[in-house]
Amino acid sequence: MTVRANIRAMKGYTPGEQLNDPGIIKLNTNENPYPPSPRVVEAIQAALTANNLRKYPQPLGDQFRHAAAAVLGIDPDAILIGNGSDDLLTILTRAYVPEGGIVASPTPSYVLYQSLAEIQGAQYQPLRFQADWSRLAEMPAAADITFLPNPNSPSGTVVSADFLKELVHQLEPRPVVLDEAYADFADSNGLQQGLAQAPNVIITRSFSKSYALAGIRFGFAIARPALVRELIKVKDSYNCDVLSLAAATAAIQDQGYFHDIRSKILATRERMVRELTALGFEVTPSRANFVWCRRRDRDVRAIYEELKRRQILVRYMSYPIGPMGSPDEPYTGLRISVGTDAEIDRLLRELQAIV
Amino acid sequence: MTVRANIRAMKGYTPGEQLNDPGIIKLNTNENPYPPSPRVVEAIQAALTANNLRKYPQPLGDQFRHAAAAVLGIDPDAILIGNGSDDLLTILTRAYVPEGGIVASPTPSYVLYQSLAEIQGAQYQPLRFQADWSRLAEMPAAADITFLPNPNSPSGTVVSADFLKELVHQLEPRPVVLDEAYADFADSNGLQQGLAQAPNVIITRSFSKSYALAGIRFGFAIARPALVRELIKVKDSYNCDVLSLAAATAAIQDQGYFHDIRSKILATRERMVRELTALGFEVTPSRANFVWCRRRDRDVRAIYEELKRRQILVRYMSYPIGPMGSPDEPYTGLRISVGTDAEIDRLLRELQAIV
Repeated sequence: MTVRANIRAMKGYTPGEQLNDPGIIKLNTNENPYPPSPRVVEAIQAALTANNLRKYPQPLGDQFRHAAAAVLGIDPDAILIGNGSDDLLTILTRAYVPEGGIVASPTPSYVLYQSLAEIQGAQYQPLRFQADWSRLAEMPAAADITFLPNPNSPSGTVVSADFLKELVHQLEPRPVVLDEAYADFADSNGLQQGLAQAPNVIITRSFSKSYALAGIRFGFAIARPALVRELIKVKDSYNCDVLSLAAATAAIQDQGYFHDIRSKILATRERMVRELTALGFEVTPSRANFVWCRRRDRDVRAIYEELKRRQILVRYMSYPIGPMGSPDEPYTGLRISVGTDAEIDRLLRELQAIV
Repeated sequence: MTVRANIRAMKGYTPGEQLNDPGIIKLNTNENPYPPSPRVVEAIQAALTANNLRKYPQPLGDQFRHAAAAVLGIDPDAILIGNGSDDLLTILTRAYVPEGGIVASPTPSYVLYQSLAEIQGAQYQPLRFQADWSRLAEMPAAADITFLPNPNSPSGTVVSADFLKELVHQLEPRPVVLDEAYADFADSNGLQQGLAQAPNVIITRSFSKSYALAGIRFGFAIARPALVRELIKVKDSYNCDVLSLAAATAAIQDQGYFHDIRSKILATRERMVRELTALGFEVTPSRANFVWCRRRDRDVRAIYEELKRRQILVRYMSYPIGPMGSPDEPYTGLRISVGTDAEIDRLLRELQAIV
């Protein structure tokens, strides 16, 4: 018995290493180094009743939708809940992309977009960035869906607001998904830029990074209510569980805590950029909770391996092509998550010894 | 901006009513009337640490797989975890069914199978049951996937072991999904019958019913390890969260509790069949945690509505066709979940007043 040829042929997305060794410093999957808001744990405790466990959760997560809508100043019906933002990217691909269709995204970028294209039996169209990452060098002319992660991974960069507006306008009515998993670490985002009003824009957000809740799997999408109604048909009826809904609701309501840990991460990020540059890395200025480090004088893979031997996990990335003007193909580098200050001190000490 | 025509055209699956009124007796979505094992709450409490919340969970749920494999006497690599068994049905549909392909299932049955076909842009092929529900009246000749819920909903019936073997053998190498969401309430199941060894069989299980954990969304599939490896490519990387994994692991390890509540449900079910029959319903003998009740002398929809006015929610179902030989089309009835004895006493009292 065989699955579809497109599934058989694909390699499958490989998530970042999840080593369970508690001694390891994990800077490879952009988790938040700080605990979630104490309100989150309280909310989960409060939701932990026999009746909540044995009964189905709210299919649309109404309590979360109302809480998030109040915080963001939007219509609750403009919100779609997801079991992590990957669930939302999956729902969007299934909603828009026919077999043999086209999925476009920048490259180098989140490699899941290509996996989603392969699962759907669609073609994947990579789009190159300009050398300064502020625009795409080409437009996805005929794509059934275009994913634009902003900030982008692994570069940590954002495209300019002008380019974003231009892209959305030029592709209309074709859908543009602004994957804003890292937007909480940037200075601006698509929602603030009014893009959620555009008829062809869907914004996706994650609780895994800025809210320190990767373990509970929660994300949401923002789009026009008429579109959200169509996407509801595609999602699993009960895609979010009662505890993650309670956790996400409490997390988004504690904006004070959110801003506190965000500020700490941004401060550490700026220090990482400075000190890694001083160690000879080419560090791209980051608007996310990680930094992208390359170097021409030596193989970064060896540095990744040496760090791993020293109990520090960063992510070694190798892409078939880089942004315009990049001299190297494959385009390789280390994506290093922003950790606590103590973790980053240790990283910098080890790197000093290595390079 | 429009989603695919197949999505636009579909009505979408409607989950059972989830009324939040705490005074209501909810017998409409086959939730377990008993709380989950006390070990489950303890396990969630123990897993509720900042590190677990902020870090990604195990992508394949290794701890759960080992625990379940030990209980069931199977290979851990034969297990695929799912965010509810709906997630597994979705993964299987995406893995096997091309656009324009065929999804087959019995009818009347779980209506999600048709929704999954529609989302995938595939054709749905309904298959009629024989009058006694023990076999299908026809074979799904060219289906890309065949879903066979066993026990079936709304009938609560199982097909014969002989028929099951015949179906699996005859369809080989085409995949047969034994949807065993309700199998824990039956006398036998596909795993015990050796069907998980067949190269074209995937068994799916749910924690929503027999383990009283609908709120946490957890299910799993059993198939040959080589096939599980293909399905892993299709699932979202982190489809199950750290708390639901802890809950499911504790639940499956507490087989004593599981058998206790199962026995109570089976005893109440037999009483429901007897007393509802005495009240003039045609009740199909059930192997699930609900009973299927019809009557020819009056409209069951009016009974459903009258019960709802009296704060008891059951599920009114209307299908375009019934099993072979059914005189009525549409084929209608009430699907009533097995509640606690007190809930069922109240149901029977109200029904006595109504009919």
